[in-house]
Amino acid sequence: MVRVGILGASGYGGGELIRLLKRHPEVRLVGFSSRRHTDKALFEVWPQLVDERMFKPQEEVVAEAEVVILALPNGIAMELVPGLLEAGKWVIDLSGDYRLPPEVYEAWYGLPHKSPALYREAVYGLPELFRGEIPGARLLANPGCYVTAATLALAPLAAGGLLEEASLVGMSGVSGAGREAEETFFAEVNENLKPYRPGGTHRHIPEMELNLARLRAQGRWPRTHGAQKGVRLSFIPHLVPMTRGILVSAFVRLNEDLSELRLEALYREFYQDEPFVFFTRALPQTKGTFASNRVWISLRKDERTGLVQVFSALDNLGKGMASQAVQNLNLMLGFPEGLALDREGVWP
Amino acid sequence: MVRVGILGASGYGGGELIRLLKRHPEVRLVGFSSRRHTDKALFEVWPQLVDERMFKPQEEVVAEAEVVILALPNGIAMELVPGLLEAGKWVIDLSGDYRLPPEVYEAWYGLPHKSPALYREAVYGLPELFRGEIPGARLLANPGCYVTAATLALAPLAAGGLLEEASLVGMSGVSGAGREAEETFFAEVNENLKPYRPGGTHRHIPEMELNLARLRAQGRWPRTHGAQKGVRLSFIPHLVPMTRGILVSAFVRLNEDLSELRLEALYREFYQDEPFVFFTRALPQTKGTFASNRVWISLRKDERTGLVQVFSALDNLGKGMASQAVQNLNLMLGFPEGLALDREGVWP
Amino acid sequence: MVRVGILGASGYGGGELIRLLKRHPEVRLVGFSSRRHTDKALFEVWPQLVDERMFKPQEEVVAEAEVVILALPNGIAMELVPGLLEAGKWVIDLSGDYRLPPEVYEAWYGLPHKSPALYREAVYGLPELFRGEIPGARLLANPGCYVTAATLALAPLAAGGLLEEASLVGMSGVSGAGREAEETFFAEVNENLKPYRPGGTHRHIPEMELNLARLRAQGRWPRTHGAQKGVRLSFIPHLVPMTRGILVSAFVRLNEDLSELRLEALYREFYQDEPFVFFTRALPQTKGTFASNRVWISLRKDERTGLVQVFSALDNLGKGMASQAVQNLNLMLGFPEGLALDREGVWP
Amino acid sequence: MVRVGILGASGYGGGELIRLLKRHPEVRLVGFSSRRHTDKALFEVWPQLVDERMFKPQEEVVAEAEVVILALPNGIAMELVPGLLEAGKWVIDLSGDYRLPPEVYEAWYGLPHKSPALYREAVYGLPELFRGEIPGARLLANPGCYVTAATLALAPLAAGGLLEEASLVGMSGVSGAGREAEETFFAEVNENLKPYRPGGTHRHIPEMELNLARLRAQGRWPRTHGAQKGVRLSFIPHLVPMTRGILVSAFVRLNEDLSELRLEALYREFYQDEPFVFFTRALPQTKGTFASNRVWISLRKDERTGLVQVFSALDNLGKGMASQAVQNLNLMLGFPEGLALDREGVWP
Repeated sequence: MVRVGILGASGYGGGELIRLLKRHPEVRLVGFSSRRHTDKALFEVWPQLVDERMFKPQEEVVAEAEVVILALPNGIAMELVPGLLEAGKWVIDLSGDYRLPPEVYEAWYGLPHKSPALYREAVYGLPELFRGEIPGARLLANPGCYVTAATLALAPLAAGGLLEEASLVGMSGVSGAGREAEETFFAEVNENLKPYRPGGTHRHIPEMELNLARLRAQGRWPRTHGAQKGVRLSFIPHLVPMTRGILVSAFVRLNEDLSELRLEALYREFYQDEPFVFFTRALPQTKGTFASNRVWISLRKDERTGLVQVFSALDNLGKGMASQAVQNLNLMLGFPEGLALDREGVWP
Repeated sequence: MVRVGILGASGYGGGELIRLLKRHPEVRLVGFSSRRHTDKALFEVWPQLVDERMFKPQEEVVAEAEVVILALPNGIAMELVPGLLEAGKWVIDLSGDYRLPPEVYEAWYGLPHKSPALYREAVYGLPELFRGEIPGARLLANPGCYVTAATLALAPLAAGGLLEEASLVGMSGVSGAGREAEETFFAEVNENLKPYRPGGTHRHIPEMELNLARLRAQGRWPRTHGAQKGVRLSFIPHLVPMTRGILVSAFVRLNEDLSELRLEALYREFYQDEPFVFFTRALPQTKGTFASNRVWISLRKDERTGLVQVFSALDNLGKGMASQAVQNLNLMLGFPEGLALDREGVWP
Repeated sequence: MVRVGILGASGYGGGELIRLLKRHPEVRLVGFSSRRHTDKALFEVWPQLVDERMFKPQEEVVAEAEVVILALPNGIAMELVPGLLEAGKWVIDLSGDYRLPPEVYEAWYGLPHKSPALYREAVYGLPELFRGEIPGARLLANPGCYVTAATLALAPLAAGGLLEEASLVGMSGVSGAGREAEETFFAEVNENLKPYRPGGTHRHIPEMELNLARLRAQGRWPRTHGAQKGVRLSFIPHLVPMTRGILVSAFVRLNEDLSELRLEALYREFYQDEPFVFFTRALPQTKGTFASNRVWISLRKDERTGLVQVFSALDNLGKGMASQAVQNLNLMLGFPEGLALDREGVWP
Repeated sequence: MVRVGILGASGYGGGELIRLLKRHPEVRLVGFSSRRHTDKALFEVWPQLVDERMFKPQEEVVAEAEVVILALPNGIAMELVPGLLEAGKWVIDLSGDYRLPPEVYEAWYGLPHKSPALYREAVYGLPELFRGEIPGARLLANPGCYVTAATLALAPLAAGGLLEEASLVGMSGVSGAGREAEETFFAEVNENLKPYRPGGTHRHIPEMELNLARLRAQGRWPRTHGAQKGVRLSFIPHLVPMTRGILVSAFVRLNEDLSELRLEALYREFYQDEPFVFFTRALPQTKGTFASNRVWISLRKDERTGLVQVFSALDNLGKGMASQAVQNLNLMLGFPEGLALDREGVWP
């Protein structure tokens, strides 16, 4: 049993982590903290839980934990992580702080990075593509939700050197904005649909591009760092009136004319041993991934334009956040990769 | 007062037409029929109506009407219209039967056309682009919902000869599938998001391409028919868990490098006199068009890729169907174009 | 044309009032204010509007208006109204400030009343029951949403002296809580259902009881004020994951055993001349009242228990708030009662 | 490992059973059948599953199973069960066929009962109240969803002999109507709220009354059968625009005046050892029970009327159907009662 603590346990990432870790047979959840709730019990903050344990001060959680999971807003992990590593903790960070080279991070997040040197020690936790680096990692950067969907959608093409150009649309449920996020009031977003942060400004774009460039340059199991050159993506995220779920739909121009059949064979082979990636002929539906660690991918060739259309669905709080963190935790510590994780969704 | 009848009054298009025509000061609604309901009162089929008038047999509706609006499934209008025109009726057809050259129709709809000669007499009713042809038309083909959104989104670029390539995503509320449509059960589509008919197979694609080709070839006010050559579009529709609303998001490659400012000026000028098209810097939200005839368009330049991203929202049952039909009726008969139509939506 | 101004124009009541008043042929909307937005245009606060007029300071709105509509939180009208009346304005107040005798108000709202004497001058604006008092009123208290639904549901029984006991459940869409209200974040209330303020603590209870007591004591067209004695209601409100709509379902014990047929006849007669109340055998659906001033009532006798079950649906922002205010405005100023109001809903 | 088969595996009850049984450590799911799908794989019928096993003919499922779970419409189990019992199977029936005395069943379900004698052998599976009878049962009648919520809400009062009168409102998500049920199209029920089957006609009423009468007559652990006399309930079900979840809100008249504090103590004691019933001061929210076997109960005294208001939430497909069946299966076969069941919900 490993002792795990969560900082930021009142957000959706934290809540989903608690659900998963409570049933994890190798984990003892020793504490959880929140800047917003200090003297409250878990059930008061999370109505779905019947757990009377109290939120603790952050220092107590850290003191008792061997593994610290940071489910905090961007910009905070980079202050805490140096101390945590020094204290010998394993760290899983759900924020963007260690996902990008510091200079890229600073440009896109508009924040000076406070521990840039640690980026070189951070391992990027997308197991299906970079699994080899994760075991034994001390600092793991858990990928973003759109990024996981988009990268896995295009990875077989990028790794095969086929990717010429790609335009992506992301569509996300409202929980992706966080709990009690600005401008997510029910009466404003229900029965409503809108794009947001268009024009190449969404922070997930460089993370997608970096992932695809690495795959292109180094094949499937690259080392995390190093110079790569790759495609520029055009990406438009949208807010959809549902709670959970992300769908990415991509228009892809290949540098070689492959048939739909060949492309499907390529994807099937690429993902054949992946327990959580399902490539099917059936088109993905987000509900089919609800509350699971599943990624559902499908593709079509548009013969009239020559473009390939690729679709990728996942649960933004599952494989897009909390359950991917548990998958990474399992790999870091040598547990079976799928421990405490669901491969199938809840329907309806 | 003109006497108007509706065939197909139990579908969503028919229901919205009734709502609009009941408040139209120049229209007397003389009858409505439905193949599904013959001995029912209006309020029994439409819970929002407090109207005790009975559905009538189709022939009675036709006999009493000067204008017949066909809100029927594809493939039926082409059987009825010859007789209606012969009987001297004005006809507005909400189906796809007269929107496309018969050979294109047959290829995409998989049906032999039964009155192909009438296509040459049909006027395509997208007033913002082809207004000049509508007054006096006897047979009007009312455009599809995705087509209206997509065409208006790209029209200024097409008319300006700027359009090189475009990939479009459509996202539609569930009412777009029709009333009591297969696979639209609440528990299956609520909290769910999915693409459908991808791979260049959706029937609205040739209608979009034809519209843009005409604009490219002939400028803004072309005659409807004639040979044109244009871009091929890649289009992916999606089903979104909401009732009404369509959003089209497009990635566009221009053949000239124009700044965002120049593009915005182009759109503003193109639509400056259009009472129902609103081009704004603010990004569109479908809810802002709810139950109205409004189209809300915005754009962004993605400087990193050079692509232009264009967004277009409307109510699929409003400007995408019934209120556009009323706009066309107003133009056909010489009433003020906006009579009985709302330029603003209902919020929340 | 009467000059109307709205204070509190950034809330849902204010927004719906603007929609209705813009199409009112006898009203000129001369201004609107909001404590939250001073230097903004209407379209910036209300995405459904394409109106560039600016919010104004409250004093300017008041100065230019003959009729001032207060769409403000409870507790503010009672400070403003004395000055407004002194300045010769007509006032319609959407808050609870003048709906209840001051001592009752203070007990239930927990606020000292600052202009209690004006309660005697205020007219309670439920036209279907107290129409006679409204023409010429200078200060009109517009009823609450639950209250309108519940009172109209039980009025024929109360006026007939039949009401012995009633337990009511209210179910409301989320917009009833106001715009950007606490605890109405999409991901928290979507796919969720809960009671709130149970145990006889909801502020609408005394207003319901007072209305029913007046009907019982004085018949249908009572003077507003005076001592009455009536039934105590047990009322439980619930929050339902939808935007608009209220349904009240009541269990009623009568002091006389009337058949379902007799009861239906009683309701039909009671409401036969009311343009906005529809009593039908068909059970009400909130969607059938969407964006309208309609109230939809139905009843059933539960023969096994002897209880009468009464159902009442309306749009909480329509007949439950803004359109009822317009109906009252029409009556106050002598316009046709239904001017600018819809008797039918928008579906779907 | 016990071999379990499911008949009716394409409905929501069947789908949820599959989800739960696949992770049950003592169960081997040996087959599943559906009258609608014979030559399909599981993943084709259930998009959330990544399971390629095929639906089988009913006889094959039965032949291979030791336990047969019937997730079929009412009226079918009563034909199948005699043969199944004869063949030595354990049977769990999710329909209403064996929940009621045959004469009551026939009166409320309008069907002649085809195996009435077996009612005496059937055990009613509401473990929290009638646990003692379940171990070793060969034919188990799994309670209805509204009934489970209502009975557990009122059980402490009924068992204490305190219940004088009760009026109940039920509010259910749309999945309660079944998969692809009539009149559950998204555009018709989204943003809509309505009562249905009012007037004392809903089939769950006699089941609720019978349960409460037994508790009143015999205390907490009665034998299932025998004459009882009890209260008549007035019950109104409502359809709420959400997928899962049931809330029952009750107005209760006691025959003794107990304080809120005393009542809360009574409930706490009554349910103190129940792993799946949570009585709290916090008001229940259906989302807090999502995808779990949890029942969430709370109460308030309405001091003004003397009525007690009791609230009870559960997942209609969980504790209201499939997970309760698994709980019963665990008890029948001597497994730990909570095996494979979740005590906590999924949020958001």
